[in-house]
Amino acid sequence: MGTITANESTKYLKIASILAQEFAKDAAERDKAGGTAKKQRDALRESGLLNLLIPKEYGGEGQPWSLVLRIVRELAKADAALGHLYGYHAFQTVLPHIAGTTKQKEYFYTQSAKNNWFWGNSSNPIEPSLIGKSHGDGFIVNGHNTFSTGAKDSDCLAITWYDNPEKTTFYLGIIPTSRDGITINDDWDGMGQRQTDSGSVTFENVVVEADEVIDFTESKGTPLATFDAILSQIVLANVFVGSAEGALEEARRYTIEKSRPWYLTDYEKAIDDPFVQRSYGDFWIDIQAAVQLVEKAGRKVDEAWGQDRSLTEEERGETALLTGAANAFGTKVALNVTSNIFQVMGARSATRKNNFDRFWRNVRTHSLHNPIEYKRKNIGHWVLTGEYPNPTVYS
Amino acid sequence: MGTITANESTKYLKIASILAQEFAKDAAERDKAGGTAKKQRDALRESGLLNLLIPKEYGGEGQPWSLVLRIVRELAKADAALGHLYGYHAFQTVLPHIAGTTKQKEYFYTQSAKNNWFWGNSSNPIEPSLIGKSHGDGFIVNGHNTFSTGAKDSDCLAITWYDNPEKTTFYLGIIPTSRDGITINDDWDGMGQRQTDSGSVTFENVVVEADEVIDFTESKGTPLATFDAILSQIVLANVFVGSAEGALEEARRYTIEKSRPWYLTDYEKAIDDPFVQRSYGDFWIDIQAAVQLVEKAGRKVDEAWGQDRSLTEEERGETALLTGAANAFGTKVALNVTSNIFQVMGARSATRKNNFDRFWRNVRTHSLHNPIEYKRKNIGHWVLTGEYPNPTVYS
Amino acid sequence: MGTITANESTKYLKIASILAQEFAKDAAERDKAGGTAKKQRDALRESGLLNLLIPKEYGGEGQPWSLVLRIVRELAKADAALGHLYGYHAFQTVLPHIAGTTKQKEYFYTQSAKNNWFWGNSSNPIEPSLIGKSHGDGFIVNGHNTFSTGAKDSDCLAITWYDNPEKTTFYLGIIPTSRDGITINDDWDGMGQRQTDSGSVTFENVVVEADEVIDFTESKGTPLATFDAILSQIVLANVFVGSAEGALEEARRYTIEKSRPWYLTDYEKAIDDPFVQRSYGDFWIDIQAAVQLVEKAGRKVDEAWGQDRSLTEEERGETALLTGAANAFGTKVALNVTSNIFQVMGARSATRKNNFDRFWRNVRTHSLHNPIEYKRKNIGHWVLTGEYPNPTVYS
Amino acid sequence: MGTITANESTKYLKIASILAQEFAKDAAERDKAGGTAKKQRDALRESGLLNLLIPKEYGGEGQPWSLVLRIVRELAKADAALGHLYGYHAFQTVLPHIAGTTKQKEYFYTQSAKNNWFWGNSSNPIEPSLIGKSHGDGFIVNGHNTFSTGAKDSDCLAITWYDNPEKTTFYLGIIPTSRDGITINDDWDGMGQRQTDSGSVTFENVVVEADEVIDFTESKGTPLATFDAILSQIVLANVFVGSAEGALEEARRYTIEKSRPWYLTDYEKAIDDPFVQRSYGDFWIDIQAAVQLVEKAGRKVDEAWGQDRSLTEEERGETALLTGAANAFGTKVALNVTSNIFQVMGARSATRKNNFDRFWRNVRTHSLHNPIEYKRKNIGHWVLTGEYPNPTVYS
Repeated sequence: MGTITANESTKYLKIASILAQEFAKDAAERDKAGGTAKKQRDALRESGLLNLLIPKEYGGEGQPWSLVLRIVRELAKADAALGHLYGYHAFQTVLPHIAGTTKQKEYFYTQSAKNNWFWGNSSNPIEPSLIGKSHGDGFIVNGHNTFSTGAKDSDCLAITWYDNPEKTTFYLGIIPTSRDGITINDDWDGMGQRQTDSGSVTFENVVVEADEVIDFTESKGTPLATFDAILSQIVLANVFVGSAEGALEEARRYTIEKSRPWYLTDYEKAIDDPFVQRSYGDFWIDIQAAVQLVEKAGRKVDEAWGQDRSLTEEERGETALLTGAANAFGTKVALNVTSNIFQVMGARSATRKNNFDRFWRNVRTHSLHNPIEYKRKNIGHWVLTGEYPNPTVYS
Repeated sequence: MGTITANESTKYLKIASILAQEFAKDAAERDKAGGTAKKQRDALRESGLLNLLIPKEYGGEGQPWSLVLRIVRELAKADAALGHLYGYHAFQTVLPHIAGTTKQKEYFYTQSAKNNWFWGNSSNPIEPSLIGKSHGDGFIVNGHNTFSTGAKDSDCLAITWYDNPEKTTFYLGIIPTSRDGITINDDWDGMGQRQTDSGSVTFENVVVEADEVIDFTESKGTPLATFDAILSQIVLANVFVGSAEGALEEARRYTIEKSRPWYLTDYEKAIDDPFVQRSYGDFWIDIQAAVQLVEKAGRKVDEAWGQDRSLTEEERGETALLTGAANAFGTKVALNVTSNIFQVMGARSATRKNNFDRFWRNVRTHSLHNPIEYKRKNIGHWVLTGEYPNPTVYS
Repeated sequence: MGTITANESTKYLKIASILAQEFAKDAAERDKAGGTAKKQRDALRESGLLNLLIPKEYGGEGQPWSLVLRIVRELAKADAALGHLYGYHAFQTVLPHIAGTTKQKEYFYTQSAKNNWFWGNSSNPIEPSLIGKSHGDGFIVNGHNTFSTGAKDSDCLAITWYDNPEKTTFYLGIIPTSRDGITINDDWDGMGQRQTDSGSVTFENVVVEADEVIDFTESKGTPLATFDAILSQIVLANVFVGSAEGALEEARRYTIEKSRPWYLTDYEKAIDDPFVQRSYGDFWIDIQAAVQLVEKAGRKVDEAWGQDRSLTEEERGETALLTGAANAFGTKVALNVTSNIFQVMGARSATRKNNFDRFWRNVRTHSLHNPIEYKRKNIGHWVLTGEYPNPTVYS
Repeated sequence: MGTITANESTKYLKIASILAQEFAKDAAERDKAGGTAKKQRDALRESGLLNLLIPKEYGGEGQPWSLVLRIVRELAKADAALGHLYGYHAFQTVLPHIAGTTKQKEYFYTQSAKNNWFWGNSSNPIEPSLIGKSHGDGFIVNGHNTFSTGAKDSDCLAITWYDNPEKTTFYLGIIPTSRDGITINDDWDGMGQRQTDSGSVTFENVVVEADEVIDFTESKGTPLATFDAILSQIVLANVFVGSAEGALEEARRYTIEKSRPWYLTDYEKAIDDPFVQRSYGDFWIDIQAAVQLVEKAGRKVDEAWGQDRSLTEEERGETALLTGAANAFGTKVALNVTSNIFQVMGARSATRKNNFDRFWRNVRTHSLHNPIEYKRKNIGHWVLTGEYPNPTVYS
């Protein structure tokens, strides 16, 4: 897959940075409003960033994952929900590549690039919440999925279903979001990540055509086939670290511009206070460690991704370890920073108007999808036994 | 001052507990609504708890501070804003006692008991935000105060002013909240403690009668005169610890009733998961340490309070150390518990409907009024030099 | 059982305090030397403190556990090994009381008081490291036990054995340490707690007379019968907290007398540095929380102990929770304080001559005997289910 | 300066790795013995690694700092004292380069490479502990320096002195360690880093020849002139991180080979315990973050070093931030890992024979030379003001 050339990556990062600045302007208000960030999603559509990962031969930009992940982080600094949506879009985009046939990879990459698709999902690999009955060579799907991130306003959906409640066979399909029978419910009520449209989707006799069903023949048993779990982990890690960076930046601005020195001290400004300085140093140091770890994991993802179908179990395993580590460490750092910035801003900062608590709410909400303790356990199991984490939806 | 007799204290704690259960029912909704908890404030009025500290000879209940503080904690378990309001009420009540003459103590205690006053405040001892001009033997006060906790719906207000912007002389007065010229603004916009009515108050030619001005003649220079700072610290400490207890209790109920076991494990229920158990154990242990420390500080406050005007600097100092310690430690524990309960409840708990983030928002907001680092520094200064923290508004 | 009368407890604490001052003088050197603290053990013998727990009717001092635990802490401030030895002595002393018949209780209390016994142990309830064969009404015991704390220089030993390697039946006996066939090996090689004589003991055809075998008839199935596990937990907790207190005190003295201010600051003395002050404050605050928690647990132990054989499972359970909590919390605080005092003393403090690392080595070594994570888990299990920790050797 | 070519760096790392394995064999014993690691120092001499940094044109290996730092870390895994000695050697080697004239750079590099010098130091830029009197064009130096790392068994010494106790002028010289009048005292008594020979050195009429005095003419005022402070920080950071890695590796081996499962569980082996696995995972994750941060800082040092005399203040500043961050973060992680490995090894691991406490003692001792709080403060000051840390001996 692609390699970063300095010029190109600079160009895309600059686009992301300009978008982020724009998104930052009303991020606090949009968090309160919740709902769909339609305008921002359209700005992402227009930015050209949706096709970054798609190889050039299929009409995309041919950029590496590490660049996409940096963009996730850049967007998350301003608005964790948008970083999340962009990152989830990215790893849906590659599902036909990792799980389907070569032909499907080509087809969906090409379609996605040509039509500038924004991908959403409605999948639940754990429970048989959607059941598909055979219908010719395709399926008719019924059921109800919660946590369908980015479904609203998407152009296509990656969906998963089982053939029966006993979960005998598992299917993955890519269908237009506008398909008859799909109802995207406005019921996302998260205390954070409020504009990720992570509500539920109802399927009523939804037709999935034969060529929309991913054919696992070529991917079956290959380590690449489960690589989406790794991508999901590292996307989240970058959302966390970006959130911490964004929180630090907002806090810094507030402390410089508005915080008062503690009234029992002689400091002229809050920024002269040694305890304030020390805390900022500590936050920054932890964030740098997290940034270096997500960057390292990103380079590892590039390496693994470059192996394509010949990715070995060992390479997949090493990548899962680093992305899992980045995710767990990013969570720890981001929770600490987003909770404690208030101590260096002071009592007047903690208003609903400022809405600085959104950083903590976003990280707190988004970090719950797979327990951090099990990420640590899986990694520790490998430390002690040399066995890589089992490929699952979360590792 | 009073001593707890087991029967009486049991009676009052039971009243508080029943109130707390009632307040808990819509605490999550009221947090979202903000504004004045009129119904709950009236329930406190009717409960008889407002007069707890007032000596029996003046018509009160003659109970000790340690009981009041336990009630603050009990209320805070259900609703930190109401614990806060009740605790602030309590230490306003004793202001004429600690700062005024014996006659004023008697007068205000008697009036407060007889009329079942709910006390609020609008004071700013740091800045000359209110200026009072002499007017006969009284004053006419003008200005604007932010952070006037509990002013709304209060019966009387403790207010402070200076005679000029150079802060030459400092005054304290107790006036009816209904006094002409007082406008209580609906502008409290905290991200937590949302029903504490901690907004601003505007004073336009507000008359303070001569006998409403606290006369510092008898209190001047006595360690008791600045005891309100200590009371404020330990009230807050109990709000924090109560919040942590309440968060643990809500999380426990959720984990038992709703949390799912991590899907990659074989546990039948979430409560069977060793990591979940371990976290609950860790939360509980830290909370017990905090409870014991606030209880110890409460007993120390009783001892000091029992000395009345003969309280020595050393006794005041020892009390300030323990209450400061309880406050700092309570903050640390409460922030940790309220942020991390989500990890043992899981992703589905983090909704706006559940509103479990209010525990963290309450603690985070309320713990910013005086920097924890300076509390540690003051105590460490004493460890190293034997010098007690300077009596200030916060120690 | 006894209750503290202020005068008596003051008297014994003063004795302990004088001993501790004496022990402190060469604690650093004795730690390096290891081996048996013969002189200090004899000083404990002469102090009268060995008989504190023994009821007055049997010739003892009739003091409560809470006083013994305070003395453990007082000794541990100066020397954690001696606090440990004294505390272990104390809970061996009561073994015939909790596990034996009324007659055995009377006999061993009386003998111990009369002869001023210093108790040691050599027991292993987990593994069949000692095997006893019936011999008349008594036993002949063979085997080898590691971790026999305080065996050396003891007057009597509490030993445990099984009747066969399949551990069919478990026995407890109290025998003179001088009994033929007992070899106390000088092989304790701990990196901390170096003068606890916790080495191994070899048993070669050691006769245990019939009346030295504890008769479980009366105790069987009673909650009191397993109360030694609780006593062990709270003894250790007090050793940890005392170690933290002692470390803070030594560090304080060093910082005041010897530490230099950081050379890039303008502070005249190290104690003027705000970061140094803050750290001391933080240490002190955490230690106060730990002290209050061990004190609370000590009062709970007194209550439970006062129930004697009528102790209920619930009362035992509540006590196990608090003592377990005190142990886990004490470990956390003590590890933090003993490791981080160096930061406020500076580079020159970290010499072998100063031997300040012994505080950390002592706590680190002594806190490993039962995993802190399982203490948390057991307590969390109770939080979630209401089931008390199973009575075991460690809870 | 040099760039790493994969082959070369692999070669040198392999040499380091083989040395480290050799050093590891008796690291525990040598820690107890203290004194000079003569055999190991000679092995370093024979390895060719002493000349790594010296440019090829002067007879050295022309390798970059990042490789030297990795070797410091590799050695520190086995023995932090040897990592320390090697790293200190390395930054003494470049002193004539950064502080002297081009001619001196050439001369000392050439001499060092040709004679395979092992560099030590005896300098104290803070206090006038050595005073030099002019003597012809050179000096005669008298005085006494503590903390002269690596002086013993070195071939040459970097020394610093003042012309008078008022510290009017500061000098730096490079002299043979065998010079008359130099007495290297065997008085290093650190509780850790016991074979770093960091004792004191006495100077009695020690002649420093004119051409041994570093001439600051060319370096004065250039950012490169104070670059040794940065090198010292990042050398230490790598010693800390290497110590953590080494501790984890030793603990892992012990847990696999010797630890027993907790007796109240059903796990067959200790490594099956989820809490043990979780802790190993957590340690590993933190260490990866630290490794990535020191690696990033190492690359930044390469970049800055590549600028040579044209290094700008901004580039120096950016490097100081990253190396300071790596040092502070490495300290935090290493203290945590080295103290807590015991919890996953169990009670039997904590013996003097195993000597696993040396990891903590090494990190604890070595991390005290400049307060971590001031490193955080300096970085925070930059976060808030954009001003780089002042170039000092420690930043």
